[in-house]
Amino acid sequence: MSYGKFDLSLYGILDPGRSMGRDLVDLAEASIAGGVTFLQLRDKKGTTKSMVKTARRILEVARPRNVPLVINDRVDVAFAAAADGVHLGQEDMAPEDARRLLGADAIIGVTIHSLAEADAAPVKVADYYGVGGIYATASKHNPDAPIGIDGFAMILDALKGRDEVARLVGIAGIDLSNTAPVIAAGADGVAIISAIYMQDDPQSAARHFSGVIADSRSRAGL
Amino acid sequence: MSYGKFDLSLYGILDPGRSMGRDLVDLAEASIAGGVTFLQLRDKKGTTKSMVKTARRILEVARPRNVPLVINDRVDVAFAAAADGVHLGQEDMAPEDARRLLGADAIIGVTIHSLAEADAAPVKVADYYGVGGIYATASKHNPDAPIGIDGFAMILDALKGRDEVARLVGIAGIDLSNTAPVIAAGADGVAIISAIYMQDDPQSAARHFSGVIADSRSRAGL
Repeated sequence: MSYGKFDLSLYGILDPGRSMGRDLVDLAEASIAGGVTFLQLRDKKGTTKSMVKTARRILEVARPRNVPLVINDRVDVAFAAAADGVHLGQEDMAPEDARRLLGADAIIGVTIHSLAEADAAPVKVADYYGVGGIYATASKHNPDAPIGIDGFAMILDALKGRDEVARLVGIAGIDLSNTAPVIAAGADGVAIISAIYMQDDPQSAARHFSGVIADSRSRAGL
Repeated sequence: MSYGKFDLSLYGILDPGRSMGRDLVDLAEASIAGGVTFLQLRDKKGTTKSMVKTARRILEVARPRNVPLVINDRVDVAFAAAADGVHLGQEDMAPEDARRLLGADAIIGVTIHSLAEADAAPVKVADYYGVGGIYATASKHNPDAPIGIDGFAMILDALKGRDEVARLVGIAGIDLSNTAPVIAAGADGVAIISAIYMQDDPQSAARHFSGVIADSRSRAGL
């Protein structure tokens, strides 16, 4: 299955540690109903077997809605579950290796934290970049200071300078109040964890984000 | 690279948590010099990137000596590093999925703890089985009681009943004093962690094991 035109607008990250103990499949379904357009499964503690099983269950609800699912880090899990691709951090497998393993149709995302990483990123291997942390966040331990909107814009310029069709999502600490500047700066979307999946009503939270993203694009003339 | 006739006799498990802080490549090299015939890299805590790097470095010393290296659990690491295969626990990827990913030439090992797991193991997918825990061990948290030599022999019979060419290594708590019964019971080899890699002189420890294994085979008429 190939997602040539996948939509990064509202990128939801499912993490069992940021789910308030709820089933990730239920969260996936609710957030898709609210407007999430892209999903990542991130599980740094589960067994391989449990990750494959969870990924397969999420795919059952995401595929019929044309929402791609990528797996954080674990190329083996993506392959075994026949997920749509992987998202790779700087401490994960090299994107070229992942591409070789998963093939041309897989979606490969790469995290970029700094201009130095943007300059070192392999050209035209990644399908998109996750750029951040933009704001401070409680969802992940980030040793570096947030890059802010200015940092995000600089990295965006650097990546588009190397690959004019590069697509980017902003990540870290994004909530309803600070989404607009990320979109206005040129992001193709925002990656959200807590502001959707740690909310009592993830579907409603996702719907609010969809509205804010549409508004922000309209105001920015995008 | 295919290892149709790989030798399981002395199976060393390299684990950064059971290395006394020493470099795994040095440990690999010393233990091969002492007679280790097969290597597994087990790292439950490292990043994917660091595992791939370590695996590649171990392969540089193991390949010239015709010692295969398999990776515990992580099929993605095995693929990226072009290691010789994987060793899969019961909570890891299904062996059939790993075979599909790594191809016919890869070495796939599967852990078996009980007769029930032996009966449920896929037939003729694994190239060998790691059967145990035979004795009590400090190298890994094993929730179940050791199966002992009698348990090992029962599982060996069950696996050979399903696949007459099944090959088996005994694992857990094996040291120089209790290797002979494992070999006499029909094991193709013994898997060792602490009794080699937690020793001051891993090369000498491996050499002693090689001697004990040869003696045990000779006494058992193998």
